[in-house]
Amino acid sequence: MRQSTLFGRTLREAPADAQTPGTKLMLRAAIARPLASGLYTWLPLGFRVARKVEQIIREEQDRIGAQEIRIPVITPAEYWKETGRWDTLEPVTFRTKDHGGHEYMIGYTHEELVMHHARNEILSYRQLPVIVYHFQEKGRDEARPRAGLLRVREFVMKDAYSIGRDWDELDKQYWAEHRAYAKSFARMDLEAVSVESDTGNMGGDVAHEFQVLIEVGEDRIIFCSNCDYRANMEKATRRIEAGAPTNKVPKPSEVATPNTTSIEALQTLLGQPAPAFLKTLLMRDAAGNVVAIVLPGDRELNEPKLRKVLATSEVKFANNADFAAAGAVPGYIGPVGLRARLLVDASVDGRSYIAGANKRDAHLRDVVNGRDFTGERVDVHDVRDGDACPKCGGKIMIKRGVEVGNIFKFGPYYADKMNGTYLAEDGTRKPLMFGSYGIGIGRAVQTIIETHHDDKGIIWPIAVAPFQVHVIALAGKEPEINTAADKLVAELEAAGLEVLYDDRDETAGVKFADADLIGIPFRLTISKRTVKEDGVELKPRGAAEAEIVPRAQVVERVAAHVRRALQ
Amino acid sequence: MRQSTLFGRTLREAPADAQTPGTKLMLRAAIARPLASGLYTWLPLGFRVARKVEQIIREEQDRIGAQEIRIPVITPAEYWKETGRWDTLEPVTFRTKDHGGHEYMIGYTHEELVMHHARNEILSYRQLPVIVYHFQEKGRDEARPRAGLLRVREFVMKDAYSIGRDWDELDKQYWAEHRAYAKSFARMDLEAVSVESDTGNMGGDVAHEFQVLIEVGEDRIIFCSNCDYRANMEKATRRIEAGAPTNKVPKPSEVATPNTTSIEALQTLLGQPAPAFLKTLLMRDAAGNVVAIVLPGDRELNEPKLRKVLATSEVKFANNADFAAAGAVPGYIGPVGLRARLLVDASVDGRSYIAGANKRDAHLRDVVNGRDFTGERVDVHDVRDGDACPKCGGKIMIKRGVEVGNIFKFGPYYADKMNGTYLAEDGTRKPLMFGSYGIGIGRAVQTIIETHHDDKGIIWPIAVAPFQVHVIALAGKEPEINTAADKLVAELEAAGLEVLYDDRDETAGVKFADADLIGIPFRLTISKRTVKEDGVELKPRGAAEAEIVPRAQVVERVAAHVRRALQ
Repeated sequence: MRQSTLFGRTLREAPADAQTPGTKLMLRAAIARPLASGLYTWLPLGFRVARKVEQIIREEQDRIGAQEIRIPVITPAEYWKETGRWDTLEPVTFRTKDHGGHEYMIGYTHEELVMHHARNEILSYRQLPVIVYHFQEKGRDEARPRAGLLRVREFVMKDAYSIGRDWDELDKQYWAEHRAYAKSFARMDLEAVSVESDTGNMGGDVAHEFQVLIEVGEDRIIFCSNCDYRANMEKATRRIEAGAPTNKVPKPSEVATPNTTSIEALQTLLGQPAPAFLKTLLMRDAAGNVVAIVLPGDRELNEPKLRKVLATSEVKFANNADFAAAGAVPGYIGPVGLRARLLVDASVDGRSYIAGANKRDAHLRDVVNGRDFTGERVDVHDVRDGDACPKCGGKIMIKRGVEVGNIFKFGPYYADKMNGTYLAEDGTRKPLMFGSYGIGIGRAVQTIIETHHDDKGIIWPIAVAPFQVHVIALAGKEPEINTAADKLVAELEAAGLEVLYDDRDETAGVKFADADLIGIPFRLTISKRTVKEDGVELKPRGAAEAEIVPRAQVVERVAAHVRRALQ
Repeated sequence: MRQSTLFGRTLREAPADAQTPGTKLMLRAAIARPLASGLYTWLPLGFRVARKVEQIIREEQDRIGAQEIRIPVITPAEYWKETGRWDTLEPVTFRTKDHGGHEYMIGYTHEELVMHHARNEILSYRQLPVIVYHFQEKGRDEARPRAGLLRVREFVMKDAYSIGRDWDELDKQYWAEHRAYAKSFARMDLEAVSVESDTGNMGGDVAHEFQVLIEVGEDRIIFCSNCDYRANMEKATRRIEAGAPTNKVPKPSEVATPNTTSIEALQTLLGQPAPAFLKTLLMRDAAGNVVAIVLPGDRELNEPKLRKVLATSEVKFANNADFAAAGAVPGYIGPVGLRARLLVDASVDGRSYIAGANKRDAHLRDVVNGRDFTGERVDVHDVRDGDACPKCGGKIMIKRGVEVGNIFKFGPYYADKMNGTYLAEDGTRKPLMFGSYGIGIGRAVQTIIETHHDDKGIIWPIAVAPFQVHVIALAGKEPEINTAADKLVAELEAAGLEVLYDDRDETAGVKFADADLIGIPFRLTISKRTVKEDGVELKPRGAAEAEIVPRAQVVERVAAHVRRALQ
């Protein structure tokens, strides 16, 4: 490929709004270009990377016997309505109607569609187990697209769906996909760790995420510094030690707290640390039901955990009318005497706390859980650095990560909602046991850039590089240099190598800067000097120094490198 | 691939609404399944075919130096508004809004998006010429999806876009794509002829369609029986001989025609043939402008030609108010004295005609064009069987065809509307000269089925077959037959062949019927009998007879066949 007519020009400067180092390089190197917020076009260099990532994933799916299909982007409402996701996914999806008034969703994911086909195609246990997958555009109306291709509104996902006869078969399929994912990420040179995660709006209850731990990630992952425990923030728990004894705590008594509505202000006023207080949050779920959550003053509410407890798609703060109905006052709400469904977080122990008195400018001292109030026991708090590991009691650490893949074990969840059954060997009808498995191509590519670059540009792993060799001709006014470069390119291509050939009429400075920016693994430079020495200058992208390799050896030398890397 | 767990079951009977022989087989062989009207999911067998078709097209695009990119499905309204197609495409497109109220179209095609990227990426003549292409879903809200994958509402199109410096460069790109298309269809074993066509709502004015001539096609293609003239019905013209002399025709005189409002009824009443009459049609364009079209009584209006003359997206019949304003009466309209813009079709010659009198129950005899009425001369009639070829005067024939590809030479049309310019060598800014080139994958696959089948099923060309070899194990109760079949499959796969392995517990009858239906090129059967003879039964799908081939030779024999076919 001649660089002179490569579509997509490199940029000296990244747009001012590029948020991460990798986003800057992605845009500068002409990997992709935005069309609108969160909508990107792959340019030729980037698309070559995307295709290689896709092919790696395809090979690993095929290796576990998965079968490739392709479901439309435009998906009829009727299937989504069977599971109720037509409504719950509304806030994050794109909808359309045809001119006859029928409703469609631009596929957010494709569970319902696969289950629909499965219930029609699979009649008998003899057709199972099966895994199908496709690469298809997904539409997600993200409120805040960010960081280039990390969070966008349309992207190609490889989504696989496993269908098994029973939990055992599903379990085997789930772990086969887990292994295929680990292998796929390793081949792209992404260090992805799998962590337990929440199933969110997907249904079901066992799931893992594959996380690449980098600062630009928006997920928080919990690790034990002692054992192998790890989990997504939305799923993580901790070991909670028994609190101080509650003997002889006096009855609650009021303390005046004028204009003191936050835990911080209370700490200053009463000279007590945050854990001495109770924080009571009045919330509404998607259906408008009101619930109060009680947490220690130093703990944060984990909304995904709460949504899961409430089986709702959304929680928000209660309004003034809700406060009035509960007999509470904003800023002074507390669990004692509150007229609301009460959820007590597991972090609240048996000690005495200071809590809101449900009247203006007053709190109560000596409030004890189980004595002065009772509620449903739940785990809805954020785990934090230094907490005790739920498995071993070791210290917990938190790291930032990018979720590059996720896998879900649903069991009969979708089959039950969509009447997806098969005739079992014993003559009864049983539910199709379901799992789903997703990887976003663009996010994987952006994560590779975030983890493979230096100040000058991208450093592509050979397996996903847009080209393997970058030939730079420094011809100046001498056409014989171009002739020598043409010949080198032809030999490299004949050896099966993918070559980008910088044939432009530009200075060495511009060409080398672009080569570093684009980040192709091997740079070969031909100039008057190298031709005189009957050599070619070879510089691997990551290396500090270049060397002159004899012309007769250079093709085989690079080819051998590439072969080894792709093994 | 083991057939026992192949996703997608074959059907004994096609659904009652399957319209063409190929549609019946496509559905019965589990190539694709409908999700809704005009929305199909590729099942594994069909997707393998689609991927091979895609790869053939990709290779031929790459061979002419085209660069693969990928533009989103969700396309922002702003770009479509620059060319005015946001409005004109409304009736045939799917629209969506994000939760911020921004408008998008599910890409009907992608010219505007490519031109947008091109004007940003291409600064100088030194970056030209360039061709980019992508494979991407298109959404088209067809009122009448039909014939399986022939006309659907979502499909993957390979759309390529050429950008050149001037007409000469565009012309070279256009014919390079024409050659790439011819080669692509030949590799799929589709006999596609290229015919001149109308550019319709795409803009520009030079275009060709690639048509496969089969009865199930919905396009009508004009061929000369004598020379190489051919054209789409929407573009075809004919040689029109001068009419009879008009000497001494008396002045028009009224003839009573009570309750006689059609050409057929007039023929009966007045005893004259259809060509003796004039047919006058009062129409409205998309903007509401009214126009009258005058045709001989035996000629049909060609709406696409008329839309092009009027530069409108839609024409429909005028209403009663339009008739009143024109001073006409429905059923008795004629050109004499009519108060409307008058278009006179080229088929109307200088002879005297009978035409409506613009009053109830009356017509005029002896009406002569140019004497009794005058109008703009246009060509808006349908060419028909037996007409004279416009090139040589030979007899024209009409055949039905399926349009499997189309190519458009736009020139500066899009650049002018979207301010797409580059800095030319002479220092001036010039328009990016544009062309576009489309092939629908699904329609190509369906057309291959329509042209490659017999009563029993599909007969895939080797280059696009889902698998190359179908191994049928007739094991009955004898496990050693399965062992022999396993070994044969392993050897075939080691030789690089793609094998579907019928390992199911079914009768020979069921297995052979499915094999004929699915249509894989080579069927190899292993049974007790063949094992005893140390042979394998080989039957090419199209052949009448099977033969026993020695076991030691069969793998190489089939491999050699396949190699030859793919050369």
